[in-house]
Amino acid sequence: MKMRRVAILGVGITPFDTYEDVDVEDIARPAVVKALADANVKKHDVQAAYVAHLYQGEVFGQRILRGLHFPEITITNVENACAGGSSAVREAWLAVGSSQADVVLVVGAEKMGKGLISFVGSDVELAMGNTAPAQYALAGVRHMHEFGTPPEAFARIAVKNRYHGSLNPNARFRTPVSLEEVMNSRPIATPLTLLQCCRNGSGAAAIVLASEDWCKRNGKRPVWIEASGLSSWMADKAHRDLTSFGATSRAAKLAYEYSSIGPEDVDVVELHDAFTIGELLHYEGLGLCKKGEGARLAQEGATSLGGRIPVNPSGGLIAKTHPLGATGVAQFVELTYQLRGEATGRQVEGASVGLAHSQGGTGLEAGATCVTILKAG
Amino acid sequence: MKMRRVAILGVGITPFDTYEDVDVEDIARPAVVKALADANVKKHDVQAAYVAHLYQGEVFGQRILRGLHFPEITITNVENACAGGSSAVREAWLAVGSSQADVVLVVGAEKMGKGLISFVGSDVELAMGNTAPAQYALAGVRHMHEFGTPPEAFARIAVKNRYHGSLNPNARFRTPVSLEEVMNSRPIATPLTLLQCCRNGSGAAAIVLASEDWCKRNGKRPVWIEASGLSSWMADKAHRDLTSFGATSRAAKLAYEYSSIGPEDVDVVELHDAFTIGELLHYEGLGLCKKGEGARLAQEGATSLGGRIPVNPSGGLIAKTHPLGATGVAQFVELTYQLRGEATGRQVEGASVGLAHSQGGTGLEAGATCVTILKAG
Repeated sequence: MKMRRVAILGVGITPFDTYEDVDVEDIARPAVVKALADANVKKHDVQAAYVAHLYQGEVFGQRILRGLHFPEITITNVENACAGGSSAVREAWLAVGSSQADVVLVVGAEKMGKGLISFVGSDVELAMGNTAPAQYALAGVRHMHEFGTPPEAFARIAVKNRYHGSLNPNARFRTPVSLEEVMNSRPIATPLTLLQCCRNGSGAAAIVLASEDWCKRNGKRPVWIEASGLSSWMADKAHRDLTSFGATSRAAKLAYEYSSIGPEDVDVVELHDAFTIGELLHYEGLGLCKKGEGARLAQEGATSLGGRIPVNPSGGLIAKTHPLGATGVAQFVELTYQLRGEATGRQVEGASVGLAHSQGGTGLEAGATCVTILKAG
Repeated sequence: MKMRRVAILGVGITPFDTYEDVDVEDIARPAVVKALADANVKKHDVQAAYVAHLYQGEVFGQRILRGLHFPEITITNVENACAGGSSAVREAWLAVGSSQADVVLVVGAEKMGKGLISFVGSDVELAMGNTAPAQYALAGVRHMHEFGTPPEAFARIAVKNRYHGSLNPNARFRTPVSLEEVMNSRPIATPLTLLQCCRNGSGAAAIVLASEDWCKRNGKRPVWIEASGLSSWMADKAHRDLTSFGATSRAAKLAYEYSSIGPEDVDVVELHDAFTIGELLHYEGLGLCKKGEGARLAQEGATSLGGRIPVNPSGGLIAKTHPLGATGVAQFVELTYQLRGEATGRQVEGASVGLAHSQGGTGLEAGATCVTILKAG
């Protein structure tokens, strides 16, 4: 049985930056204000909020909305590491889809310190030095071994995303970089070089979801959420095949099946490019190409603006940086612009179906991947 | 529009204790195993899980279920401070009610250190010494001033809950205490004495939710979730009237209206007695009595086992201690026993409607309160 239809009615972002002397609540609030204005929705119309973060402490959502003098609505805080933002969107989709609310706000926000930290005492891999770039590097090397993928294929993804970022006023890194610059930047974990790794950032993003009836009354052009699939991964199970993120294909399968939309129908993708190797592997996991063909996709420019299936027109995490809770929600901001035809300078022409993919976890140990499919109204 | 009906099919608890040398994941897992067995549900039947905690780090739910060799299902972590457990139940209710899943697991677990800590840098009240007992004490003193409530009324609630706890094999404090012992225990924040404050504890609780169709196939007697209301509170707004927790009455109103069940229909209550003063104020907020009459309810024994409306037959937080994420879920464990007639030694005779109330936040600044109404199948 399907739920009732749910739309994105408005979006807002606080462009990602360092914000050293700004409280995280004050980073988040401008994104909320912009999303409400964009949606043409008033505070008292909002019945519930879902708020994603990792490091910002208890009842974060309540603390954000308090400062905006919101009514005392239903607020739930959601955590799924770097996939927290998209997981929060998913809960909001359930709340509207199940008719428990007509208008729901989603906020993702994070103020980052000097690096990723882990609260998890039992995180053996991190203790052994198997940090995130090291894990992606292992996958990349294995992909090179199995499919003959050249290291340039990964590097080209950084070139593409930095080029896309140069067209996005909301990106933090707005200068393009050349293939040589990427390849010659400082080695982090071979084949990954510095410019192939996303950087920490602070920031926020917010979106407003509403029921079909509410959209009709509101008059704003909706972007429909057609499906959201969320899958976990847990240690060795997902990584028996180093070159596949099992959770990406499982989450995609859930979303494709529920929406009856397949990868061949997708016009534009925002995906989790914490590292270029991840982006290439996710091409395959999402079914944008066959297994082993990710390098070809990257090298022939199919995922660049103007290509067959543009990926990360926003510039992705590589050009925007990565404030954990905000990252997933920011993908919906970009896709909404794209599906409304408002992504000036980086518009995917005629885009009518978008896909958001976001992934997070603690090392190889455990995590979550969320895939959401959007359609222009 | 109503969602489809959702039932609690099975419950499990890891009795609350210190567990100094036990990893939190190993505290949580036995509760999950017991809940699945009680529900007569296999791991591969479970499609999604919602996991509540405050202090246990990223993707906690994935880390718990990994060790039980669960399939890689949809897992979402939920935080709403001390109301996280009931908020997680609410999300699971939406997931089943909206037909996105047929069988959903909810886990609440927490391993506590030496005291409550706050991640929130901006928590001005705590910095000023306005800790949780001090806040409740202020409310209690004001209630005494406005309604002539004697301090004994609060103390009697500790006597009652410790007596109830003495009948519950899952309670941590299993010796009853006298009114004199409570009144003469060490002052914490007048009128609160030591025995009127819940104690930190570690522990876990789990429940299995399922759709009506699944219940019919399963054959286990269901306990229905009739409604769940969740309200935030934010600083001064909720506390203009010191003697009322506005979020309690707002959450109760949402739940009563959705279920068409009123306070007069409720047979048994588990509520958030972090401090005895809270329990008395919540009598009034939930509508179990009129405003100002909480003391009479406590003193005439109406909320004791055998009384008109027994409250906290499990012994509440006062007899069980308070592992934050677990606390809200543990209320559902007790109410399920009560509504199935299995609460041996502390059974509320003929109980067919139960109410769970849970409250959490950071000082007076911001928080969440959840009220859920259950009905015997």
